[in-house]
This record gives sequence, C-alpha cells and structure tokens, in this order.
Amino acid sequence: MLNFTFHNPTRILFGEGRIADLGGEIPSGARVLITYGGGSVVKTGTLDEVKAALQNVTVFEFGGIEPNPTYETLMQAVELARRECIDFLLAVGGGSVIDGTKFIAAAIPFVGEPWDILAKRAPIQSAVPFGSVLTLPATGSEMNSGSVITKGATQDKLAFMHPLLFPVFSVLDPTRTYTLPPRQVANGVVDAFVHIAEQYLTYPVDARVQDRFAEGLLLTLVEEGPKALAEPGNYDVRANLMWTATLALNGLIGAGVPQDWATHMLGHELTALHGLDHAQTLAIVLPAMLQVRRTQKRDKLLQYAERVWNLRDGSEDERIDAAIRHTRAFFESLGVPTRLADYGIGAEAIPPLLDKLAQHGMTALGERQDVTLEQSRQVYELALSS
Amino acid sequence: MLNFTFHNPTRILFGEGRIADLGGEIPSGARVLITYGGGSVVKTGTLDEVKAALQNVTVFEFGGIEPNPTYETLMQAVELARRECIDFLLAVGGGSVIDGTKFIAAAIPFVGEPWDILAKRAPIQSAVPFGSVLTLPATGSEMNSGSVITKGATQDKLAFMHPLLFPVFSVLDPTRTYTLPPRQVANGVVDAFVHIAEQYLTYPVDARVQDRFAEGLLLTLVEEGPKALAEPGNYDVRANLMWTATLALNGLIGAGVPQDWATHMLGHELTALHGLDHAQTLAIVLPAMLQVRRTQKRDKLLQYAERVWNLRDGSEDERIDAAIRHTRAFFESLGVPTRLADYGIGAEAIPPLLDKLAQHGMTALGERQDVTLEQSRQVYELALSS
Repeated sequence: MLNFTFHNPTRILFGEGRIADLGGEIPSGARVLITYGGGSVVKTGTLDEVKAALQNVTVFEFGGIEPNPTYETLMQAVELARRECIDFLLAVGGGSVIDGTKFIAAAIPFVGEPWDILAKRAPIQSAVPFGSVLTLPATGSEMNSGSVITKGATQDKLAFMHPLLFPVFSVLDPTRTYTLPPRQVANGVVDAFVHIAEQYLTYPVDARVQDRFAEGLLLTLVEEGPKALAEPGNYDVRANLMWTATLALNGLIGAGVPQDWATHMLGHELTALHGLDHAQTLAIVLPAMLQVRRTQKRDKLLQYAERVWNLRDGSEDERIDAAIRHTRAFFESLGVPTRLADYGIGAEAIPPLLDKLAQHGMTALGERQDVTLEQSRQVYELALSS
Repeated sequence: MLNFTFHNPTRILFGEGRIADLGGEIPSGARVLITYGGGSVVKTGTLDEVKAALQNVTVFEFGGIEPNPTYETLMQAVELARRECIDFLLAVGGGSVIDGTKFIAAAIPFVGEPWDILAKRAPIQSAVPFGSVLTLPATGSEMNSGSVITKGATQDKLAFMHPLLFPVFSVLDPTRTYTLPPRQVANGVVDAFVHIAEQYLTYPVDARVQDRFAEGLLLTLVEEGPKALAEPGNYDVRANLMWTATLALNGLIGAGVPQDWATHMLGHELTALHGLDHAQTLAIVLPAMLQVRRTQKRDKLLQYAERVWNLRDGSEDERIDAAIRHTRAFFESLGVPTRLADYGIGAEAIPPLLDKLAQHGMTALGERQDVTLEQSRQVYELALSS
C-alpha cells in the first residue's frame, strides 16, 4: 500500500425527505446564493423544497449553469455574489452545478483573474463555504474538493482542486433523481464506473481494502444500473446508485493506491472540441485505453475479470479480452455508445484532439506517467469504430 | 437503505514514517499532554519519535492508562491537564489510550462530576481537541467519536460518544505494530471482525454498498489475520489490517443499515466481572449470539456464508451452521478461545452477568431491540463449553 493522507469533512444527509434538514446546516443570518442549472430543479419542485427549508437567511438565486460549466457563465455569478455580499453558496443540481459552485466559491475572494486558478494553478487562499443538494448521481462532486471548468472562448476544459472546496454538507435524496431523463441516469452510471476504474485498474500494490471497495462499487453499478433505467421509481435502486457514485470519488478508494485518469484527460478533449456528454467520452475512451494499456494493467485486469465479471475460464489474454468486452457491453446496454463513429466523429478529428492534449501538457498520462501522445493517438484510433 | 447522516472529519496520515508529519497538525504554541499506556511506546521508541516530531509546543506526559481504561486513572490526567492549562491532547497507543483520551478531552472543561457523562448521559458542551498515534489496530477509536470507560470501584463498563470527540488527526504507521505481542494482534483482528459483524449480520435493507464494503473488510481480515501472526514484519499485511480495523468502525459501513451491538454489551459485562480481554469476550459471545439469533438473522447469515466463506452447498440451515462454525474456527485459529470454559468460567457466573446487564438497562438489545435478558441467558449458556 502507498502512503496516503485521507481527510473528507463533508457531512452527508442521506435519504428521502432530508432536504427539510437543510435549515440547520447553514449559519443563521447568512446571505445565501442558490445556484442551479437549466431549470429542471424549478420544474420538479426541488428548488421550492429547498427554499422552504431555509430559515433566517437571505436568499438570492443564480440559474443557468450549463453542463460542462463555463468560466463565462460562472463569472456572472461571481459578480452577483460580490455585489450582494454573499457568504454562503448552495448548489442545487448535479456535478456541473456543484463544480461550477466550487469555482464561484474560490473566485469570489480571489484577487486577480480567477481563470488563473485553472490555467496557472494560482494558489487559493480562501473560499466562500457552500453546501449542495444533489439531483444527479454521477460525478461525486458532492463529497470531494475537485472541479472541472470550461472556458467557452477557447474550449479549454481544465480541473482544479483545493481542501477549502469540500462542500460543508450535501443532501442526497434519492427521490430527487426519479425524474431524470434516462440519458442522464445512464451517463451517471458510466461516469461513476470510470471514476472507479481510474483508481482501480492500474497496478497492484496489495491494497486489499481499496480493491474490495472498488470491486463492491463496480458490482453495485452492474447490478443496479440497468434496474435504474427499467424501474425509475425504485427507491433502493436509486439510493444504491447515489451512494455508489458519491463513494466512487470521495478519496476513499483512491487512498494508498496508484491512480490513472488518462481516460478522463482524453475524454475532456472530446467534450471540449465536439460537445459530447462527459460520460459518453468516458464510454468511448475506457475500453480502447484498457486495450492499448493491457500489458501495463495486466494483473489488475485479470483481478477485475474474475471479481467483477466472474470470468475464470480460458487463458489470461482471453479473460482480459472478455473483461474489456463486458465493460463495453455494459455501457452499450445502458444506451451509451462506445465508438467515435456512433457520434459521427471520424479519423480527421484525431490530430486536433492530440494538439489540444499537447497544448494542455497531457503528454505523460496514467498511473506511471507513460501514456505518451503516441499512445493517446492509438487509443483514439482504436475507438473510431468496431 | 435507511436514512442516515455521515460525517467523519478525522484526518488520517497513513504509512511508514508519517509520525514525522505530526508537527504540522498541532497548533504552534499549544500546551500538549501526551497520553499513553503501560510503557510499550517508551520501550519501542515510538514516544521518542513522537516527541521529536513536535515543534513549537510545550509537552507534558501522562502514562499508565490501562487496558479498559478506568475513570479513576483518567481523572488523574484530567487534574494534571487542568493544572497545566493543556489545550491539546495527543494519545499514543491503542484503543484504550485513545478511548481514555476522549474521556479526558470531554472531562477537562466539564462542569460537575465527569462520570455523569457516562452514567447519566450528561451533555458535553465542549472538549479539548486531540490527535492520536495508533500502535494497535483493533478498536477503530482513531477515526470515530466513541469511547468505553470502566469505573474501577463498581466495575461498570459504559460507552459514550459525541461529535466533538473525533480525533482531529490520527497517524497510522503500520511499522509501529511490528512489535505487538501475538495476543494483541489476534485480539485486534477479532475486535475488528466483530465490529463489522455488529453492523452487517442484522437484517437486509438492500444497502448494497454497505454490504459489499463489510464483506470486503471481513475477507481482508480472514486473508491477512493469520499472516500477521506468521509474518510479523510484513508491511503490507500490517497496513491492510490497520486500515481495515479503522474502516470497520468509522461510521461508513454502519451508515444506512441496522446495527446490533448485543454481542458487545454481553461482552462488556464479561470484561467488567472477569477481566477478560475485550476481544476474548467477543470471540466467546458472537458465535453463540449468531446461533441463538439465527432465525432473526437468517437472510444475512446466508449472504455471509456465501460471500465471506464461499459456502454454496447444502441446505440453508447447513450453510448457516457452517458459517458459524467457520467464524468460531477463525477466532480459534488466531489463538483466541471461544468458550467460557476455556477461560475457567462456569455456569455459576451467568446470574451475576445477567444482573449487571439488567442494572445497565440492557434488557432489549440488538437490531430490533428484542434480545431480552432471557435470550442473553441462552447466549451465555450456549457459550459455556463445546
């Protein structure tokens, strides 16, 4: 096991009806800016439920945070927050809204150009505290300190994280996910799956608990993902998916083990240049990445084959082939295609993707920093069509 | 899944050499009381290593906290701390030292008789912050807010917990456990095992992640426990055990599921009246408890049989019998006997044990509060001899 530091101070309020407990989590007298996305939280009544739970605070609202939240939109919220002396933020939505709110939280007190937090790794000295009400289980942003922001002007999609950016609390009410469109449910399952894979499918360091936990989360996604699409109102299915997606990226399964994240980096460029959903890009890149990196990931791929897919017969290479095939089939079974061709993207798209990777310094990716641009090219090429 | 609140703010510094990082975790200028037990941390050099890591603080020491820490001993530390205006505590040792330090932390600012915190559930308003350096993986006290204290005068062993009593940080260096006597290593494995059982072997609520995590921890104990005894200097084995014991009782696997704890309550009385090690009492009580409660726990016992012990053949009752037999054999294989007779305790001991349970209000125990004194009597009787 590798040495690690683990610290996750976010308080989780989990279960049906927990939005009603929000009031006690925000300081009395706070000036609260509620942030949300395209308006589904208005339509579903979640926003009203949230506002009804707030007590003795002054409430402001900022809607319109888009999927893959942009710097340009978020800076409007920063200006509003500075103008109104906001001292608490409350994100109501999915990972994009929470990620965006983390940027707002850091940008409000930031001296200088806030984009430098992403582009230049400018140090964060303070942040406005914030909580979240999660409506889409997927990214894990509700219980971590990371965020991914896109600059619309240049199509740069960059990540940052900081210990001050853990939500103070997050409310996870599974019933709030009943009305999600199937595409978002499926995307959430794929997103959580690939988060786990990035922390699990590397090389063994005899970290048995982390491996068992990762496998337990993957098994839960395999068991519950299809049911979530078939039975949208099944509480326990939604509850299991919600808690799985949170635990997939809250630092726990990644503590003390190597981490990859190459799939995410290649995926981010696909979203930035072609507008694909984040999860779609992961479903495209992961199977190809596992194929290209099968030698380096051999031991963990064999463990994955046995413990997640119960593949025990055949040669080692046959079991690895089957595990990758099962992974792809699982994504496809959820309605998420796994080839670039399925999204109308051809070979001519690859050079610009590689240029963007190079421009973002993504030339030595993966758990051993040995995924070169040449290997990334192989991954994109292998992902073109079946 | 049941509704839950999960919050665990303890920062974990895990790995070889992490004691050196202590300095940065304690406020500069603090007046620090280091607490420890019988002196093994002096002999092994761990205490010196801790003191060398402390910077810009004034250090005081209080040794002699016993296994099953007593109110009488701890109050001496409280007096010292009050006299010296201690504002940070640092526990160096195992669960008893950390549990004791939690009581000291709460008692220092307590107005009135601190035993009332346990005996009368007197409310805690504040506590002195504290950290820990763990030397014995077992109780999980290093990452939870609970504590068990014994009043020597009356042999009352009682538990309390409070959100203010999470360690601010805990250092987990597996190499610090190399010199533990085999009995303490075995006890630690049993203790962690039963902590997990108390949160897992109840009734199903379709909490799949919690079940998978509990099973992963149990499997790790089964795999690594015997190796820890056979290869005391195997770093990865010690690391896996240490992290498993912490995660066995940090709130995670118990969030959203029923919890039992009847085995612990019956065990506490055995320690209080007969001086058995805490883990010995658990090894005695758990197999008998599972036998007596096999109807109420049927579904989870069958799941446990299959997923932890790989028992798939025979009737349901045969698989449950085998699972209980495997559990007992596992404890025995570690050198921890599982019958009262093995410790020289006979049937005449049972009425006083039941009297103590009654006196402590333990008349409706378990995940459904239906373990009566009569059932506790059956458990003790079944545990007498093979």
